[in-house]
Amino acid sequence: MANPEILFQTAPEQYKHWRLAIDGPVATLSMDVQEDETLADGYKLKLNSYDLGVDIELADAVQRIRFEHPEVRVVVITSLKPRIFCAGANIYMLGSSSHAFKVNFCKFTNETRCAIEDDSSHSGRRYIAALNGTASGGGYELAIACDEIYLVDDGNSAVSLPEVPLLGVLPGTGGLTRLVDKRKVRRDRADVFSTLAEGLKGKRAKEWGLIDGYFPTSKFQESIDARVQQLAINAAPTQGIKLTPLEFESTADSRNYKYVKLKLNRDQRYADLTVHAPEGPQPTSADQIQELGAAYWPLQAYRELDDALLHLRVNEPLIGLVCVRTAGDAENVLAIDETLMANRDHWLVREIIAHMARVLRRLDLTAKSFFAIVEPGSCFAGNLLELLLASDRSYMLKDSDASLAVSELNQGAFPMSNGLTRMQSRFLAEPEKLDEVFGDKKPFDTDEAEALGLITFAPDDLDWEDEIRVAIEERTSLSPDALTGMEASLRFAGPETMDTKIYGRLTAWQNWIFQRPNAVGPEGALTNYGKPTQAHFDYKRT
Amino acid sequence: MANPEILFQTAPEQYKHWRLAIDGPVATLSMDVQEDETLADGYKLKLNSYDLGVDIELADAVQRIRFEHPEVRVVVITSLKPRIFCAGANIYMLGSSSHAFKVNFCKFTNETRCAIEDDSSHSGRRYIAALNGTASGGGYELAIACDEIYLVDDGNSAVSLPEVPLLGVLPGTGGLTRLVDKRKVRRDRADVFSTLAEGLKGKRAKEWGLIDGYFPTSKFQESIDARVQQLAINAAPTQGIKLTPLEFESTADSRNYKYVKLKLNRDQRYADLTVHAPEGPQPTSADQIQELGAAYWPLQAYRELDDALLHLRVNEPLIGLVCVRTAGDAENVLAIDETLMANRDHWLVREIIAHMARVLRRLDLTAKSFFAIVEPGSCFAGNLLELLLASDRSYMLKDSDASLAVSELNQGAFPMSNGLTRMQSRFLAEPEKLDEVFGDKKPFDTDEAEALGLITFAPDDLDWEDEIRVAIEERTSLSPDALTGMEASLRFAGPETMDTKIYGRLTAWQNWIFQRPNAVGPEGALTNYGKPTQAHFDYKRT
Repeated sequence: MANPEILFQTAPEQYKHWRLAIDGPVATLSMDVQEDETLADGYKLKLNSYDLGVDIELADAVQRIRFEHPEVRVVVITSLKPRIFCAGANIYMLGSSSHAFKVNFCKFTNETRCAIEDDSSHSGRRYIAALNGTASGGGYELAIACDEIYLVDDGNSAVSLPEVPLLGVLPGTGGLTRLVDKRKVRRDRADVFSTLAEGLKGKRAKEWGLIDGYFPTSKFQESIDARVQQLAINAAPTQGIKLTPLEFESTADSRNYKYVKLKLNRDQRYADLTVHAPEGPQPTSADQIQELGAAYWPLQAYRELDDALLHLRVNEPLIGLVCVRTAGDAENVLAIDETLMANRDHWLVREIIAHMARVLRRLDLTAKSFFAIVEPGSCFAGNLLELLLASDRSYMLKDSDASLAVSELNQGAFPMSNGLTRMQSRFLAEPEKLDEVFGDKKPFDTDEAEALGLITFAPDDLDWEDEIRVAIEERTSLSPDALTGMEASLRFAGPETMDTKIYGRLTAWQNWIFQRPNAVGPEGALTNYGKPTQAHFDYKRT
Repeated sequence: MANPEILFQTAPEQYKHWRLAIDGPVATLSMDVQEDETLADGYKLKLNSYDLGVDIELADAVQRIRFEHPEVRVVVITSLKPRIFCAGANIYMLGSSSHAFKVNFCKFTNETRCAIEDDSSHSGRRYIAALNGTASGGGYELAIACDEIYLVDDGNSAVSLPEVPLLGVLPGTGGLTRLVDKRKVRRDRADVFSTLAEGLKGKRAKEWGLIDGYFPTSKFQESIDARVQQLAINAAPTQGIKLTPLEFESTADSRNYKYVKLKLNRDQRYADLTVHAPEGPQPTSADQIQELGAAYWPLQAYRELDDALLHLRVNEPLIGLVCVRTAGDAENVLAIDETLMANRDHWLVREIIAHMARVLRRLDLTAKSFFAIVEPGSCFAGNLLELLLASDRSYMLKDSDASLAVSELNQGAFPMSNGLTRMQSRFLAEPEKLDEVFGDKKPFDTDEAEALGLITFAPDDLDWEDEIRVAIEERTSLSPDALTGMEASLRFAGPETMDTKIYGRLTAWQNWIFQRPNAVGPEGALTNYGKPTQAHFDYKRT
């Protein structure tokens, strides 16, 4: 983490590694990684291998297609390099990164893969992985995040997950989980495939369900085009909006966007994150929203929140706790929700809501503790109430005019990774509480919120400051690793989905392996990859 | 692992730490841990804390209640120590154990907790945790494996999960998962409880759903008795069978039971595990089965298999791969299955089938690779076919008279931890295959097995030996840690249950934490617990 601050904002004009071309209903995202344009020193991005910088561009491109090019119905992901689609995460980058950076890198790339699937399932765009060369490791993991995978049959190109045999780590960016859960590859075949460094080529890859088709080199492009044309029909011309750059002012201890303010209390290792409600008149029709574009509060505030969360994760590892606060008029937040609800069938509103849901899931998956602090002047209402429900605990001042309020959006617009709403997850033991909470939509004061079980603690005025201070001190004194494991376990009660399996099960095993001497020790496989020295394993099974 | 071989067999007469008392329909299991009767040197088992030896007795007791005392309807788990129910896993034992041992210890204790719940759900026995003193850490985790929890209200006794605040590790024996998934404790309350070293006492513990009731000291015993009497009515007198000791002969490279033979190829780091079919006439009625008792093949062979798996896990860490073989007459195995199926409503047959299912799940959860080897003379039929389906891969000799066969028991008698049968898990992508497989119950030769997708590879006679040899060499050359993570991910496709969440998610996070310097480094919390030195954390969040 001695590297300079990592920025998560970019735009197609600034892309170094991807080209985004739009042709009516078809977007083509071509990977052309520039070896020397790395995020840190010490490695070269050969063979379309990637580091976090490459994935930040991919995440941006997927986001922009949704907002700026809604007319797109099919996204083709391919490579501009001959004979190679993508070689996956750069091994030398992984080998030289800190454990914490590796973990954050994998989490972000996982979220980008899930964002592709989110677009596919919510907005109906089809993603086609056109593998015009070998896709190995993270390259194949990117492919299985797409709806369909086609591989060139040139006698050489293959799909592979060589992490276990070559590196002693897992295909941890969803690879193993998507193999058996999304593509439902038979587990014995998945076992063989995941231990076969060279992977499988066209015919057998198709037979085993690893790809959807293969075409000879001479017919590859036309076959992809033909498939694209089948999927791209019936596209309605739609005008997108421009995702303008987010502006913020930062000092050593703060980072202030328009609606989201971050204050870093470094000595105490916690941050105050405040989201401000919109002010003044807000649009009520889809046309007005479209005209306002990226400046519309629910889009801008949540883009800012997203950026702040990523910044905290990667650039502020010593911040262990985030106190989530809100400020402004709850009525304005509820009015926004009403407008979003009324216009939810409009493409832009649908995208805005889906984006808010993704940002909230990013929060759920952030390895920091979150405490929601509810004071007079706060506005934990509707969509902002989700911030409280996503927090590990909440504190609400008693005998004050602080209040909470629900909106219709709390009833399904923002699903967690486990497929439930945060309110459903909260009341797993008492589902009948949901009727009470959503029964009459007036604000709940502290006593009501406490009686309903919406908050954790309701200290009175006399105790308030001390109780918050002690809670912060206690939390930040605990082992950060134990907290990460605890929060990952407690936040996702109830059903599991492919996403929760990726973030909970696969990621946890990968994190474990990322600590093991067999991977990262002086004689470990990751450490010694590509070096004249060889890996030596302690063969004891754990 | 420098300690002497650990034996998993015991019997009530040999118990050091538990007393098992049977009084008609009520069994009382009282914990009275003997400080000095430890499995290794360097720690004392104070305050009813436990090591693996204590848990081996508990697992044995639960098993014996099912087979030897079927008349029991209620099991009360309590303590003979004043003011303390159980202090959980012994910290000094954990602190002085190798990583691999810690992981295996936790897995076994998890399996014991799940065995309690298995008895409860399959055989209807109610387990009551009568907490006549404080239950902390693993002590409370034992309690939440029970159906009901009652705590003495003496102004002092509490339930607690102090692992995070005191030790920097997780309550990893199912604790966190059962809190939010079984007892459905609200996640913010679970967060508070799991970070509160002193835990919660009667009233609040009840209010938060951590216990089911609390009684003052003077009324504790009579209240427990009253509850027991409510649950113990309608018990039918039934005669149990005796679980006689398993006999085996062992040399440096083998361990041979009657039906299960283990051959250790130490140089190549793999074992051959062969299960032999029954020979000669077998009982066909429940009365005959009861008369034969523990010598009845499906009980004896699976008890032997269970013991062999535990031995491999804990005493043979360098064995990374198990080649699973069967030998004998498949017809005899299928005849056994037919008898079990026909008598499945008899209590003993139900217990035998449930036991086979538990042993097969133990195999699923064993961190070794399993290859099934199908040759002429093998008998992968019915219940023994599960061994093949549980394996990571299978090899079946082509153009031979080797065959596979299904029985009705493959259709639901042996659920995996994810709630599916192994056949369902295998054919997630093609559920219609299940009809084909179970359509006509005649044996499948190699070609049929291959066409159906029941096996992975079918080498012919010319390639057979080389292919098996190379497969073994390749497998045992891979990073054992990467294999453990890979197998844990690929074996459990499809739905998740509380059990798979415990073994997949919670365990993986705990294993990660068990590697982290904040827990086990020289300044880690686990290392420094109870010492004059203090833990110091690297507060960077991962």
